Parts: sequence; C-alpha cells; structure tokens
Amino acid sequence: MPQNPKSAPGRRTRQRILDVTLALYNEQGEPNVSTSLIAAELGISAGNLHYHFRRKDELSAALLEQFVAELDALLPPAGWRADNVEDVWFLLHLILEALWRYRFLFRDLSGIMARDRRAGTRLATVFERSVQAARGICLGLAERDQLVATGVEIDALSNNIAVVALYWLSFESARHPRRDVAGAGMARGVYQVLMLVAPFLKPEGRLHLERLAQEYLSREEGG
Amino acid sequence: MPQNPKSAPGRRTRQRILDVTLALYNEQGEPNVSTSLIAAELGISAGNLHYHFRRKDELSAALLEQFVAELDALLPPAGWRADNVEDVWFLLHLILEALWRYRFLFRDLSGIMARDRRAGTRLATVFERSVQAARGICLGLAERDQLVATGVEIDALSNNIAVVALYWLSFESARHPRRDVAGAGMARGVYQVLMLVAPFLKPEGRLHLERLAQEYLSREEGG
Repeated sequence: MPQNPKSAPGRRTRQRILDVTLALYNEQGEPNVSTSLIAAELGISAGNLHYHFRRKDELSAALLEQFVAELDALLPPAGWRADNVEDVWFLLHLILEALWRYRFLFRDLSGIMARDRRAGTRLATVFERSVQAARGICLGLAERDQLVATGVEIDALSNNIAVVALYWLSFESARHPRRDVAGAGMARGVYQVLMLVAPFLKPEGRLHLERLAQEYLSREEGG
Repeated sequence: MPQNPKSAPGRRTRQRILDVTLALYNEQGEPNVSTSLIAAELGISAGNLHYHFRRKDELSAALLEQFVAELDALLPPAGWRADNVEDVWFLLHLILEALWRYRFLFRDLSGIMARDRRAGTRLATVFERSVQAARGICLGLAERDQLVATGVEIDALSNNIAVVALYWLSFESARHPRRDVAGAGMARGVYQVLMLVAPFLKPEGRLHLERLAQEYLSREEGG
C-alpha cells in the first residue's frame, strides 16, 4: 500500500526516489533511465513509484528544481562582496560540489531548456546570479585593496569566472571520456578559477594565492 | 530515381542533405528532427534520403565527422607558436565560427559521447588539440617576449583559454535563452578569450590588445 506523499513516511519515500533517480541519471544519462529501472533499483512497485511521480518528466523536473534551490542557497545575495581569498575558495568549492552532484543536467542543458521553457528561465536566472557572485568576488577584493582592475577588466573577469566554474566539469569529462573526474576534477575546477583571479591580485596576495592553490591541488589530486 | 551516391550529382545531393540537416538540427535540436522532416524540407522522397543515409544516426555521425574535420583543419599543427596578438585573434575568430556552425553538438555533447564511443574519442582528441593550440598561443607570445608567465601559469591559462573558447556560446545561450547570440556572441567569445591573455602581456602590448578588443566588440555588437 503506497504511503500518502504528504505524510512524513511519504515524504521520506519521495526523497528516496529522487536520490536514487539522481544517482541513476548521473551514472547512465537521463535518456537511458526508465521509470521501471528506477522502481527496480528502489525495490518498490511501479504503482508505488507512479503514486509519487506520475511520469519521468515529473522526476526530472523535481530534480532540476532541487538543483536550482541548492545553487540558489549557495550563491551569495545581491550586493555581496568577498572579504578575502579564502571566502572565494570556499564559495567555489561548494558550487563545484553542487554542479558535480547534478552533473547529468550539464550533459544536456540546452535540451532541458528547449523542452521546458520554465526550466530554461530558472537556469538563466541561476547563471545570471553566478555572474553576479563572480562580480562580488572581484569588487570585494578590489574594495579591500587586494585586487587591481579596471571596470572593463572586472566585467570580462566576472564572465570568465562564471564560464570556467560552470563548465569545467563538462570540459574535463569531454576531454577524458573514460576517467572518473570526481574529486580531482572539482579541485582542479576551483584551482582554474583562482588562477583567473590571480593576475589581478597585488604581488603578495598573488604569491599567497598561487602557493595555496598549488598545495590544495596536489593534496586533492594525490588523495 | 535516386542518383548513385558516388557520382558527382550523387555527392552533391549527399552534401545538400547534410547542409539542410545541419540547419534543422541547429534550429530545432537534434532530438526534435525526424528523417521525414528532413526529406520534406529538401523536397525529396523518403526513399531518396534513405538511399544516401539509412538511418538518422548516420546523418548525425556524418555531421560530427564534418565538424571534427573542419576544426581539425583550423587548429594549428603540434608545435605551432603564435607570432603576435593578431594571429591569436584570427585563429579564435575562425574557431568560434566553426563552433557556431555546429552549435547543435554543444547542446548534448555528453549524450553524443555516451551513445557513440568512437565519436567521444574523436571529440576528446579535438579538445586536447584545442588545449595544445592555446599553449601555442601562450608559448609563442612568451618566446617573442610579449607575454610574461611562469610554466604553472601557462598551464592554467591554456586550459582556461580552451574552456572559454569551447563553451562561451553554450554559456551565452543558457544565460539568454530567447536571444539569438550569433554574430555578437562570437565577437564576445573572442573578446573574453583575449581578456584572459591580456593580464600576462607586457604593458604596451596589453594596452594595444585591450583597445583593439574594445573596438572590435563595439563594432560587432553595434552592427
């Protein structure tokens, strides 16, 4: 007997379905995962799954919703300014982790946007907020006199930070189709973004950042 | 009566089929285009289309083949070094144009790679060659004493040049789902890559590049 999706056990089942679906999507690609595979993996009946999500579309939409909500919670509010390089690091690490958790989305971003206009609009908003967060990094460090750049340079840098942060994992998996990029891929993504910022830091800050970035990278890639 | 695909008119028909398919894929996305739509658009019978390409898979594979061949022809040979900033500019412009012509591919790169291992390997090779071309930009300018960077900086910069060049158009269309990014999107992509290189140029070269980049951008985005 399926549980009422509004009750606590029902909500738990719903979340378990989403967790398992996310894992299968990431492993096999969304188009290759059927609702019967999901039900089998969960050890529940097709009827029970159907009780929570009537179609595969609804599962995919709920996962996109979850991704946007998680990224939304991670991205700093409008007007945020980074205090120091450690702030930047921490933020990037959390964002790359979220992108990795939902990596199936980045396999077919435009497909998702073409099929579902509302999803497209939500993604566009999150992308725009990523560029704003990148601006907050540049402007914060500039205000604290750690970074020197013109307005035009900050505009270009903010865009480049967003592109590298959002697409690094896609790039790595296209480049090394048979390698599992996970942990090392994330560390390298954070490193690549920090190396975009480095040339604009004042000499001491730049050396500090480059040393930290190298250490972090060799620890993550070694471990 | 379909023409022999090996004869000159047969080759012309084959190419016309590929051109129309590419246009439809770019407009509507590969998954939304059927072979009957392609035949209708060409004004030929399903039988004639089938004579040249037996399945949609074969059309998609032939277009991927064409893309890889075009990018391969554009990418400089191993060991190539840029002579000056104008070289870099020209190369980037040609590459961004090719990416725009085959933009349907970048909607579902991982999907293509998952369905077709051989295609995945070819794309990985082209991606790797893009990183090598980016190294040729950095090393060439360094050898001509126009760019100053350590080995570690050149490694990071080469990767960032490749990511921004390859994914800029995807980023722009995700960010502005309803805007046609075409010409302005390409110019902005070239500009964003040049702005990655600028911080490592010597002061005169850097000012020269930034001025040229701004002029180019306002001309392309205005026109």
